[in-house]
Amino acid sequence: MPSVSKKGQSMPESPIRKLAPFAEQAYKEKKIVYHLNIGQPDIKSPEIAMDAVANHHLDILAYTRSEGSEEYRKKIAAYYQKNNIPVSANDIIVTTGGSEALLFAMSTVADTGDEIIIPEPFYANYNGFATAAGVTIVPVISKIDDNFALPPISEFEKLITPRTKAILICNPGNPTGYLYSKEEIQTLAEIVKKHNLFLVADEVYREFTYDGAKHYSILEEESMADYGIIVDSVSKRYSMCGARIGCLVSRNKEVMQAALKFAQARLSPPTFAQIASEAALETPQSYFDEVINEYQDRRNTLVNALKEIPGVKVGEPKGAFYCIVELPVKNSDDFARWLLEKFDDNGETVMVAPAAGFYSTPGVGINQIRIAYVLKKESLIRAVEILKIALSKYKD
Amino acid sequence: MPSVSKKGQSMPESPIRKLAPFAEQAYKEKKIVYHLNIGQPDIKSPEIAMDAVANHHLDILAYTRSEGSEEYRKKIAAYYQKNNIPVSANDIIVTTGGSEALLFAMSTVADTGDEIIIPEPFYANYNGFATAAGVTIVPVISKIDDNFALPPISEFEKLITPRTKAILICNPGNPTGYLYSKEEIQTLAEIVKKHNLFLVADEVYREFTYDGAKHYSILEEESMADYGIIVDSVSKRYSMCGARIGCLVSRNKEVMQAALKFAQARLSPPTFAQIASEAALETPQSYFDEVINEYQDRRNTLVNALKEIPGVKVGEPKGAFYCIVELPVKNSDDFARWLLEKFDDNGETVMVAPAAGFYSTPGVGINQIRIAYVLKKESLIRAVEILKIALSKYKD
Repeated sequence: MPSVSKKGQSMPESPIRKLAPFAEQAYKEKKIVYHLNIGQPDIKSPEIAMDAVANHHLDILAYTRSEGSEEYRKKIAAYYQKNNIPVSANDIIVTTGGSEALLFAMSTVADTGDEIIIPEPFYANYNGFATAAGVTIVPVISKIDDNFALPPISEFEKLITPRTKAILICNPGNPTGYLYSKEEIQTLAEIVKKHNLFLVADEVYREFTYDGAKHYSILEEESMADYGIIVDSVSKRYSMCGARIGCLVSRNKEVMQAALKFAQARLSPPTFAQIASEAALETPQSYFDEVINEYQDRRNTLVNALKEIPGVKVGEPKGAFYCIVELPVKNSDDFARWLLEKFDDNGETVMVAPAAGFYSTPGVGINQIRIAYVLKKESLIRAVEILKIALSKYKD
Repeated sequence: MPSVSKKGQSMPESPIRKLAPFAEQAYKEKKIVYHLNIGQPDIKSPEIAMDAVANHHLDILAYTRSEGSEEYRKKIAAYYQKNNIPVSANDIIVTTGGSEALLFAMSTVADTGDEIIIPEPFYANYNGFATAAGVTIVPVISKIDDNFALPPISEFEKLITPRTKAILICNPGNPTGYLYSKEEIQTLAEIVKKHNLFLVADEVYREFTYDGAKHYSILEEESMADYGIIVDSVSKRYSMCGARIGCLVSRNKEVMQAALKFAQARLSPPTFAQIASEAALETPQSYFDEVINEYQDRRNTLVNALKEIPGVKVGEPKGAFYCIVELPVKNSDDFARWLLEKFDDNGETVMVAPAAGFYSTPGVGINQIRIAYVLKKESLIRAVEILKIALSKYKD
């Protein structure tokens, strides 16, 4: 029997998926499981988007243009311009989710064996796309004690080699919730210009900033016109994760030309989802105001409750809807599994994502977990209560 | 300014896209262009599928499972069983179009620098996916004079090296329209077993067979359980190209495990499109009967008309809705461009796909074009008439 490729064998398993069998066992035992582990928001998608699809009048579900329709891309460009990001329709390729934009970005900047530097902890699927594209991720550690701020320039420069092609950031960060300041973005701009690298920014959580903080995009930095590539998505912005629509944005013509060829090979992004996404651009500001308020409330509830647990350390997330939490346990993998397999409080338990999977340096983050606050406040309060009781009973 | 990757630079341009600027110019000059170049059918999508999406009752457009929902995969398995393909839901991963299934298949069987043997001419985007995955395509030439039948075993065996990981076929073939016989599939099965390779079959045109011929799937061959991987799609079957739903099918557990990890990295296939595709499985047989009749009629019309043109040679397509046509010209690239730029008959012209882009051996097929018969009969008749007049006026 032939064997699968080394690539196929070494594809990393998502830190969330690894626990799935234990969660299934917990369901079978009729446990109620609070899911702090996933990024699927419970927020309703904008009605205007869902109605647009319900009211479709298509006879033939045809291909669209590989880069997305001119009309939709013009509207996306207007959205960016409103956000101080000076791009036109030609600087945008509509992709099948932020996932595909990431894969296109990696393949456009790096060949097999090339390196991309990423501050860790980082979105675990970056590992999967890097493996698929044959690219090596070089992590630079950011620390919970610094609230996951940008590591010093010197730490980046230590890691730059002739094979380094780009620095990739997620801003605001999944899993850290950290929001880079304008100064930090400018620091990154200096590094990439000095070393002639691309700067790829996953900005899918752009709108999700709290305490009045404002997101600063890499393409607001005029000098990044030739260096910057934004990865974006409708998934979180409009709670439309299942649409699978995102985009890749760059003012670098050579980048757009190459990315377009990757896009043409796969023909087109999904048509129904583009209808929803185009309509979603008309979502009223009140929708976002409510959603951001809701998340900020949840964040406050969660972080305050976590701080009450002895031995727990938590970063202060300023954006997105995740945080990294350090627990008084040796190994959060074992703890997360124990929560599902052996523990319950009145038939209830919690599922968390062990954070080691968000680091690529072995051994780092093994006493941390990622929590997504995509549950209602009451559920979050109960979930943290369960976590507190569990920690008091757990023996390493 | 940093440069894009070698991969990005060497991504091939689709043979269809290359002519797009000339087509745009022709539109500006108010020419009517008959499109013989594209595989976007003019057939209506099944109402049952389109209605299912119009009647969606989703509040949240959420992720689905990475491999597609259990329910949908069970229904797909039932469809395969009806087609004598003995697979279960666990042997199926729902993908974002056949395109993604192909990319997953290539990445699952081959590493960077590994080789996949493909009879040429082949679907041009195989080149794009191979470049993206770092895989080398090794072509084995099939000939218009043999109607593009399977080349002899000896031709395959000449090309097998320690880096060969798979043979990939498209059956029925795009761009050839050739339908492999049961005996040819069994021959391929012998080769892959002898050399311990995978056999990947793009069977997206399974239903489109004419003159009463029956498609024989690689997984009808029991000995292919460990070797066979099917790439499939709803795009052509239900004229739902814009859905972007396909699947990868294999009874090899190791293959499914690896492919699932590629699927998990990109989270999930599009949700609305899965609703349409699941409903499409209920499409009545009468829909297919009508569609197949229509295509068979078109094929007869097209092939008979082409044969009337002096110096034209045409394969006898037995499936799909393409054929390769040899023209009395030196270079079909130049001719196709001339058709758009310099020629018209009463303000009308045709757009064809030069076939060289469907070969990977340089210089082969340069006097051939691919024609897709996805236009109504009257349009096909007029298009061939235009082609005939054009050929009589064209000077190399």
